[in-house]
Amino acid sequence: MFEKNYKVSYLLDYYGNILTEKQRDAIDLYYNEDLSLAEIAEHVGITRQGVRDAIKRGEEILEEMEKKLGFAEKFVECKKALEKIGECAENIKMAKSSLSFMKIFEENVNMIAETVKTIEL
Amino acid sequence: MFEKNYKVSYLLDYYGNILTEKQRDAIDLYYNEDLSLAEIAEHVGITRQGVRDAIKRGEEILEEMEKKLGFAEKFVECKKALEKIGECAENIKMAKSSLSFMKIFEENVNMIAETVKTIEL
Repeated sequence: MFEKNYKVSYLLDYYGNILTEKQRDAIDLYYNEDLSLAEIAEHVGITRQGVRDAIKRGEEILEEMEKKLGFAEKFVECKKALEKIGECAENIKMAKSSLSFMKIFEENVNMIAETVKTIEL
Repeated sequence: MFEKNYKVSYLLDYYGNILTEKQRDAIDLYYNEDLSLAEIAEHVGITRQGVRDAIKRGEEILEEMEKKLGFAEKFVECKKALEKIGECAENIKMAKSSLSFMKIFEENVNMIAETVKTIEL
């Protein structure tokens, strides 16, 4: 077995369609289903070495894609910002009958407006 | 000259780093700077046919990438949603001293909360 780099499983979600079916399956079974190389070999119908090669090559391609395109990182930033916006909207709704409504309201609306601006796509 | 597909210029923003420098330059000069093939050939220092080939191949790669990954389309949807959220935040701020503040406020906060949920990344 070689060391697992769990970032790979995450990159697979974004760039998986770039890989061959064999690479994608091998990486999925190895990282997401936690099968051993021998189990994957049996499952996919190739040798254990073939599985190892498919995983290694697939990993290289996924990392190269992220290095060149950086979508995974951008999407993570964007998701965080969207969660924050969602929370702000909830804060405002929940504060509706609060005495400090105007303060909570202003803070959160400003936060939403600012957060939208930070998102670069 | 062959027909220009202006979607290519847009895909170049997303996937340009995947191309070779020659492909990227040729497509950029052709689509964004509107140079002729002959002008690009002179600029890049390759033949006119070489420029044509670089553009064609680059276009194929960009379209293949979008077909497989679809990031450009996702990002456009996401940008639209973010613009809407930004507008809602502005609407709320501007309505602060309006008589129908609570109505505008509720509509826009709900719209923000809903819009955040529609974004799939």
